[in-house]
Amino acid sequence: MSGASRFLAACRRQPVDRPPVWVMRQAGRYLPEYREVRRRAGGFLTMCRTPELAAEVTLQPIRRYGLDAAIIFSDILTPLEPLGIQLEFSPGPHLANPLREPGDLERLTVPEPWSGTGYVEVALRMVRAELPPGVALIGFCGAPWTLATYLVEGGTSKSFSRVKRFAFAHPEAFDRLLDTLADAMAGYLHRQVAAGAQAVQVFDSWVGALAAGDARRWALRPARRLLEALGDLDVPRIYFANGGAHLLHDLADMPCEVLGLDWRVDLGMAARALPRHALQGNLDPGVLMGPPEVIRARTLEMLRSAPGRGYVANLGHGITPDVPVAHLAAFVETVQGFTRG
Amino acid sequence: MSGASRFLAACRRQPVDRPPVWVMRQAGRYLPEYREVRRRAGGFLTMCRTPELAAEVTLQPIRRYGLDAAIIFSDILTPLEPLGIQLEFSPGPHLANPLREPGDLERLTVPEPWSGTGYVEVALRMVRAELPPGVALIGFCGAPWTLATYLVEGGTSKSFSRVKRFAFAHPEAFDRLLDTLADAMAGYLHRQVAAGAQAVQVFDSWVGALAAGDARRWALRPARRLLEALGDLDVPRIYFANGGAHLLHDLADMPCEVLGLDWRVDLGMAARALPRHALQGNLDPGVLMGPPEVIRARTLEMLRSAPGRGYVANLGHGITPDVPVAHLAAFVETVQGFTRG
Repeated sequence: MSGASRFLAACRRQPVDRPPVWVMRQAGRYLPEYREVRRRAGGFLTMCRTPELAAEVTLQPIRRYGLDAAIIFSDILTPLEPLGIQLEFSPGPHLANPLREPGDLERLTVPEPWSGTGYVEVALRMVRAELPPGVALIGFCGAPWTLATYLVEGGTSKSFSRVKRFAFAHPEAFDRLLDTLADAMAGYLHRQVAAGAQAVQVFDSWVGALAAGDARRWALRPARRLLEALGDLDVPRIYFANGGAHLLHDLADMPCEVLGLDWRVDLGMAARALPRHALQGNLDPGVLMGPPEVIRARTLEMLRSAPGRGYVANLGHGITPDVPVAHLAAFVETVQGFTRG
Repeated sequence: MSGASRFLAACRRQPVDRPPVWVMRQAGRYLPEYREVRRRAGGFLTMCRTPELAAEVTLQPIRRYGLDAAIIFSDILTPLEPLGIQLEFSPGPHLANPLREPGDLERLTVPEPWSGTGYVEVALRMVRAELPPGVALIGFCGAPWTLATYLVEGGTSKSFSRVKRFAFAHPEAFDRLLDTLADAMAGYLHRQVAAGAQAVQVFDSWVGALAAGDARRWALRPARRLLEALGDLDVPRIYFANGGAHLLHDLADMPCEVLGLDWRVDLGMAARALPRHALQGNLDPGVLMGPPEVIRARTLEMLRSAPGRGYVANLGHGITPDVPVAHLAAFVETVQGFTRG
């Protein structure tokens, strides 16, 4: 079974020979060859916007680890630029013109049809041309709520005070913003699939900042709108609900094939709560800081608790820059050698 | 019913006229009178170590809002100094000599009996002397896991890579560190109660960084050791499991009277999972950024979903510096005016 067919079958809850495996942020700073490209590029955004560089770092972890899927190298914030947002990284993201009041929404201009991220499409085509045909290619975007936090806060946040003030003070305008982002990201992902993405992941990185009721209105509702707008595409949709342990039962009717879970959630419990979805995850990236024998033992424990059908092995969050490359190998090889006993 | 008797009765699941209310970080930067004291003091640690200043800011929110309990102003990291740790704030915490390897544990010296935090005890006595007798006084400390993250990371962290590396690579040494911290904090809280604290809260601020199994070993087990060591004290024990939505069922046998919950957890669901504990919490502090009518509506919603007996109203996390003082009044007054219909 090729990696691509294994990955796509698992996403659709069809039988596989062993769980497919890829790793969130697998094209990342823990790889010396990535750091070398980044050093030459000079900046993170330059890497995102230069198809040759984005394609090169997308392919690096495939060469090293023989993963079942590649995920295009990019950032969830770059498609905000075509909306009129000025974006910088220094090193964290900074938006020069955040949205603070309902009137600011008039500044958002959504290209119709979607355009302005041609460099991602070129990079996807370059990756597809070089990638072994047996490896799947994944596209991605940020979920509406997660993008809205950056748009209102102007960067990363600990308390999310500004975006919550906006939402509680101007709920209708905030709903409109979320809908706009859902529609824009639907256009963006359609273009990624046209350029060769065989699956798409929607990252809701900050859904864990919301109480359950607020998450239903501000995160799950617009994410559902986005995922439904992808229903005409014949590719699996993955929704990654980071920090969503309190939302497990609310995820059961998300219109997607796969639910990505962070490491706090017990996989066996999740499988019982979410019988209609394939699951993806969810080893604590911190385990990769431990010795290889611990990594192997914890990976086996995860695999044994995962559902037998409809499961994609992954970390429960992006790999951190301080992980030794041999430690990720211990994780990947344990999945590759796994057969359900 | 006085505030103190209301608060202590609710902690013990005895009948009350209405839910008692206090607010995590109620002595904090959102108050102009606090910022004035801080400006004069020059530094955060100076405020902690100067009993007159610590007592003054402890009393400020009581004067303004008529809360049912005061919590002594201090920081969870100051009792690490008697263990030999060099602590600075600039503005976040920095430990000059963190513990990175098992051999570093030999540098930890725990005073036996506990000593070195006399300024907290003096501040508690000063507060008790000035505080209306009808207001309860709460002492606190950090939980062993949460303190261990600072001891190993050397400050705050996003990924907790260093402390997880220590724990996965040296599990026995890490367990010993956690036990040492549990015993030290038990001594510290005994001194706080001797100085006038009528209840104690143990803050496990970072339990949400751990997968369920790791949380059971590294957070709940040593927290249980600490809470059990307080069993001889005739004061309610509150364990605040921040980010613990995935641990709800594991909290059911914690040896404490009250479980503090963050805002992600549904209070009604928590009450069903935790029938033997009083519950404390858990409005999203972000709601206080919204308009007063939203604050009142959401506070009422919280109060109606809370258990009728054994409930202490609070936020689900510390109040943030950007909250207008009138907005906290809307929260407190809604609780003070609440009668179960």
